[in-house]
Amino acid sequence: MASSFGHLFRVTTFGESHGEAVGAIVDGCPPGLEIDANAIQSELARRRPGQSPLVSPRVEPDELEILSGLFNGRTLGSPICLQVRNLDCKPADYETIEDAYRPGHADYSTEAKLGLRDPRGGGRASARETIGRVAAGGIARQLLTRDVGVEVIAWVESIGKVGSSRPDQGSISREMIDASALRCPDEEACSRMEEALVEAREHGDSLGGVVACVAKAVPAGWGEPVFDKLTSDLAKALMSIPAARGFEVGEGFAAAAMNGSEHNDSMLFRDGKVRTARNIAGGLSGGIATGEEIRIRVAFKPPSSIARTQETITRTGAEKHLLISGRHDPCVAPRAVPVVEAMVLLVLADHYLRHRALTGWPGPMAGPAAP
Amino acid sequence: MASSFGHLFRVTTFGESHGEAVGAIVDGCPPGLEIDANAIQSELARRRPGQSPLVSPRVEPDELEILSGLFNGRTLGSPICLQVRNLDCKPADYETIEDAYRPGHADYSTEAKLGLRDPRGGGRASARETIGRVAAGGIARQLLTRDVGVEVIAWVESIGKVGSSRPDQGSISREMIDASALRCPDEEACSRMEEALVEAREHGDSLGGVVACVAKAVPAGWGEPVFDKLTSDLAKALMSIPAARGFEVGEGFAAAAMNGSEHNDSMLFRDGKVRTARNIAGGLSGGIATGEEIRIRVAFKPPSSIARTQETITRTGAEKHLLISGRHDPCVAPRAVPVVEAMVLLVLADHYLRHRALTGWPGPMAGPAAP
Amino acid sequence: MASSFGHLFRVTTFGESHGEAVGAIVDGCPPGLEIDANAIQSELARRRPGQSPLVSPRVEPDELEILSGLFNGRTLGSPICLQVRNLDCKPADYETIEDAYRPGHADYSTEAKLGLRDPRGGGRASARETIGRVAAGGIARQLLTRDVGVEVIAWVESIGKVGSSRPDQGSISREMIDASALRCPDEEACSRMEEALVEAREHGDSLGGVVACVAKAVPAGWGEPVFDKLTSDLAKALMSIPAARGFEVGEGFAAAAMNGSEHNDSMLFRDGKVRTARNIAGGLSGGIATGEEIRIRVAFKPPSSIARTQETITRTGAEKHLLISGRHDPCVAPRAVPVVEAMVLLVLADHYLRHRALTGWPGPMAGPAAP
Amino acid sequence: MASSFGHLFRVTTFGESHGEAVGAIVDGCPPGLEIDANAIQSELARRRPGQSPLVSPRVEPDELEILSGLFNGRTLGSPICLQVRNLDCKPADYETIEDAYRPGHADYSTEAKLGLRDPRGGGRASARETIGRVAAGGIARQLLTRDVGVEVIAWVESIGKVGSSRPDQGSISREMIDASALRCPDEEACSRMEEALVEAREHGDSLGGVVACVAKAVPAGWGEPVFDKLTSDLAKALMSIPAARGFEVGEGFAAAAMNGSEHNDSMLFRDGKVRTARNIAGGLSGGIATGEEIRIRVAFKPPSSIARTQETITRTGAEKHLLISGRHDPCVAPRAVPVVEAMVLLVLADHYLRHRALTGWPGPMAGPAAP
Repeated sequence: MASSFGHLFRVTTFGESHGEAVGAIVDGCPPGLEIDANAIQSELARRRPGQSPLVSPRVEPDELEILSGLFNGRTLGSPICLQVRNLDCKPADYETIEDAYRPGHADYSTEAKLGLRDPRGGGRASARETIGRVAAGGIARQLLTRDVGVEVIAWVESIGKVGSSRPDQGSISREMIDASALRCPDEEACSRMEEALVEAREHGDSLGGVVACVAKAVPAGWGEPVFDKLTSDLAKALMSIPAARGFEVGEGFAAAAMNGSEHNDSMLFRDGKVRTARNIAGGLSGGIATGEEIRIRVAFKPPSSIARTQETITRTGAEKHLLISGRHDPCVAPRAVPVVEAMVLLVLADHYLRHRALTGWPGPMAGPAAP
Repeated sequence: MASSFGHLFRVTTFGESHGEAVGAIVDGCPPGLEIDANAIQSELARRRPGQSPLVSPRVEPDELEILSGLFNGRTLGSPICLQVRNLDCKPADYETIEDAYRPGHADYSTEAKLGLRDPRGGGRASARETIGRVAAGGIARQLLTRDVGVEVIAWVESIGKVGSSRPDQGSISREMIDASALRCPDEEACSRMEEALVEAREHGDSLGGVVACVAKAVPAGWGEPVFDKLTSDLAKALMSIPAARGFEVGEGFAAAAMNGSEHNDSMLFRDGKVRTARNIAGGLSGGIATGEEIRIRVAFKPPSSIARTQETITRTGAEKHLLISGRHDPCVAPRAVPVVEAMVLLVLADHYLRHRALTGWPGPMAGPAAP
Repeated sequence: MASSFGHLFRVTTFGESHGEAVGAIVDGCPPGLEIDANAIQSELARRRPGQSPLVSPRVEPDELEILSGLFNGRTLGSPICLQVRNLDCKPADYETIEDAYRPGHADYSTEAKLGLRDPRGGGRASARETIGRVAAGGIARQLLTRDVGVEVIAWVESIGKVGSSRPDQGSISREMIDASALRCPDEEACSRMEEALVEAREHGDSLGGVVACVAKAVPAGWGEPVFDKLTSDLAKALMSIPAARGFEVGEGFAAAAMNGSEHNDSMLFRDGKVRTARNIAGGLSGGIATGEEIRIRVAFKPPSSIARTQETITRTGAEKHLLISGRHDPCVAPRAVPVVEAMVLLVLADHYLRHRALTGWPGPMAGPAAP
Repeated sequence: MASSFGHLFRVTTFGESHGEAVGAIVDGCPPGLEIDANAIQSELARRRPGQSPLVSPRVEPDELEILSGLFNGRTLGSPICLQVRNLDCKPADYETIEDAYRPGHADYSTEAKLGLRDPRGGGRASARETIGRVAAGGIARQLLTRDVGVEVIAWVESIGKVGSSRPDQGSISREMIDASALRCPDEEACSRMEEALVEAREHGDSLGGVVACVAKAVPAGWGEPVFDKLTSDLAKALMSIPAARGFEVGEGFAAAAMNGSEHNDSMLFRDGKVRTARNIAGGLSGGIATGEEIRIRVAFKPPSSIARTQETITRTGAEKHLLISGRHDPCVAPRAVPVVEAMVLLVLADHYLRHRALTGWPGPMAGPAAP
């Protein structure tokens, strides 16, 4: 289960960064769903290295093969095997790190766990593992779009110390975000982010960043009240992305500094629906969707692979001045955008099916209480 | 599974806030562990309402009964049923809210989910559900202490806008924390927090807060590299606590504003162990424990039950000015401290068994790589 | 999970034979279901010891308490805690066996597993553990009756070498079965079974038996095609009952001696439905329900507690002539009848929710193909 | 989860009979295990069609590719993707059955479930799905052999009405079984089985069969006492194989006709070990291994694809006389032998890790009680 996620819409990823292939199996996708494979390929393109001068130059077409689970383009309700062959492997790049533990990387912790380690670029800890997540998220997106109309959109909110203006609720679109390779809808901030990245790269350095995400049209009632809150499953999903260090919903840490009278939100009817005045809760109350836009944020640390000599030790106990070569990103946030979306989609697809199982939603057995 | 947590050390909580009883079943606890029931009762006492003038005055002795899983005080490897009867139920307090949705509460989202709702104080969404978590966490603590020597300590870091000084790594102890009913080890900050709480209460208001937690002596290697990272399971565990709005590990959101050269941490040997110079990663790298102190933070929003008239609507569509009575906390952070510890302990106990299953740790099959 | 069953309709039993209490938690039961607690109490009465001279004389009222999950008699969608206190514990009966391993019992295997053992009557291996199953099965039955009209009926088919005539498909009813304490609908066979039991008891011996079970009105399409076949989940469920030694569906082992041309079954329309001519498959094809009556059989070995001296050894290595006292059944089959029903009901309730999750059944998303 | 099996050693199979590929992902295999890929290829060869004139003539080399989870031939503790491309697909063979429901097949039940169906040879219901099981079982076998010395051997016990003599406990070996393409170690019976098969085929008919299996050297203590008994997990595993109709452990259904005094088994010491005199229980007591040879049997129905005209109906409601072409086995038992072994191995590998997780076995924490 270490590599599986979800309870009913269940994804298992496989593959090492420089092994034969990476990919995922999606088990539990409802039958009869028409799959647009090109759309999934486009999601992979958004995550792919080599897209712009500001990301890793590894050249991978990341061409998707769907090996099972479809007949005549429609899902059969059986496991969907999604696979991408690794092509541009340069294990030689990694020879120097076979014995040394790279600072900030999972080299030592992985080896402490397993007693051995795939030294070719991080193995399972590599961002390349997220290909399977993005492909699986593509299936989830098509399911949620067809059945419910849910829309999930993520974007870069800050890179290093450069922030951006917060978009109004409901205003953001994928077009605005994909206009820039940095995936930030605030044009002016984008150019400052680019400067910061160029400068960091010039100094052989890297930058952290924050990715924000909204999920629109999630029906009120999705989620669970105790351990499997939508809130907690989203937290798990997003904190499982490599380099994630923090997670917030709604006002997040700012809520901790607020009074109840500030944070509470009036309830009212608008267009025949139960609504809140300000969606302070970010669409989640008691772990269950309120019907408002779900709003979350994820903090990513700066990439650990920097072009500077660092102090470390080797497996055999020697001290070492390490200079890492290889092909790396100066900031993970832009390429993390499709991964954040994918993880949110996987959580929502799973909770869609869980809600349907428990209540029969949207059938007659689940009478929502609102007038 | 909605009310279960953990894969091998598995807890299922049950009970509504004003039902007959609340509690938990712990399945998967190793056999032969001597259980100190008084120690678990003490954990419950730290969580209990009515401890001080600054928490809810509901009077509940929260007396623990252990109904199964033990013989002569030792675990049998079978499910341990931990149960507390509810005594001080005042359903009358809740009559006025039977039809109205309380702002900031899960009333509406719960009803949208289920088509009905237990109006007696929040049902499963009540903080009373956490009794089962704390009791189960007490079992986890005794297992981890005996087998591994792990220690988990949480404390209040801030209440509203009042922060406290950050304790040095390794310096904090439970005695320091329990010295104050606010569970903050910084005495000076404590008195300012108390003032802030008294003031908030006088204004019929409530405050948010941040709880910090460290886990000491977690062996390097515990955790998983992909979805079930220790990081992501901790995030899920802590974001499942009522009122949690944010989660951080290590530098958290601050890491997103840092350069790689600042955030990276040298590796070195100290006392024959692989260590990092500064434990910037907060004890978790690639989702796996590094052997350093694990450091996390959780943000809690201010309680939604405030003594002010609020605007809301009823199930039948009427607008309503709602004044909530009942017995409530002005800030959840102090009583959340034992709940945070419990959730961290449950995650660690589960990953202890998972690590043992996968690698045979600490037996001969799992040779950690460090010299 | 060792004590949990089911994926969506999930039951966890707890309690040792002579501990404080036994029971179960049902998690995942849909909300809004009216629960008839008396009906569940009646199920327990059918399983209870002391019902007739032919079963164990232990006196237990087995009075059910429902501690959570209900409000005003309806399910809340939250865990339902079902509990029965143990009253007639006579641990003294078991003193002689504290050190000796009873032949045919799980004493040695349990101790080999756990390093210790609850010597009071078998602990978790006791048939008393099945109280939680029967209570949980009672919830499942009420769900399946209300939502789908499924009916599950089990009966004793043979005791020792005494068989009974096979009832015609569709003809059997609970009234016919409960007419005799032996739970066999064939009156004439009943009296021969009774004679066999009296004779066995006179010789200080016990008898095996076979329980048959049908599930009526299970909709075509329930089940899964690979590992989680309805067939395999039923097999697991029934082989988990203490003393079960064999399981069959449809023609069972007899099918292995048949030709394809005998075993194949024509398909046809009857009353507008897709049917088979003879339901040879026992209602299950490829692990999925065909819409016909599901027909299964379970073999139970004779109880191991017999009133004869047996050869065994003790924990400390001594040989011992053991004479077991205590209160035991001469044949488990009659009291196994409600347990068999409960396990089948638990499997069906789980697959009902799984089918609903995957396909939206019976909603518009799942269009069965038949005309 | 519909296509996953196991809790810690977890297998997910994928692929349709005539899709691009079939295979499995094994997640949870301990790290550092040297994998002999040729040995796994040999397991597949035993399951392969076209081996002899008595099995399906479909020509598939079933060449295994391992796409992930290994580095330098050793497991990394990460998911192992095992894959076989489908080559000899003849979808044209299946055109006539696209609309008609084949008697005895899962065509109708599958379509009733999913609202659609892969008509190319049964999709997931095809025996081709078992390739993933056999490959995964090959990994399990290598783990169990290295760590524990467990050996699992299955053979054909009967075909149609032709039985064979029961081998003495402990005497059977894989060489004896593989001496005949029918996988029956009783040479004399083999030639009668062959005659029966030739005769059946001449009449356009097919035959059922029984496969027996033993697991040697399973340590006392493996298994769980309640739902996840080794007994019940084996039952589930084996009843999930296509065409399985019955399952027995130890004396099976014969036990139901026995007296307790016959079925009980003395306990004694032999060679310093706790043993039973006759291993009547088939190595399983209370669901937990006794340390004796585990003995089980599985009944398979005759294949439904026979070369005779059968009566059926089509999706659109017409009656049809159906003559099935395609390439089929006259009896599944011989090719089921490696599948039975694989499923038993998967159950044992899973319970090995579960036992290790719960008790630390074979480390110091799990002191078995026997002297």
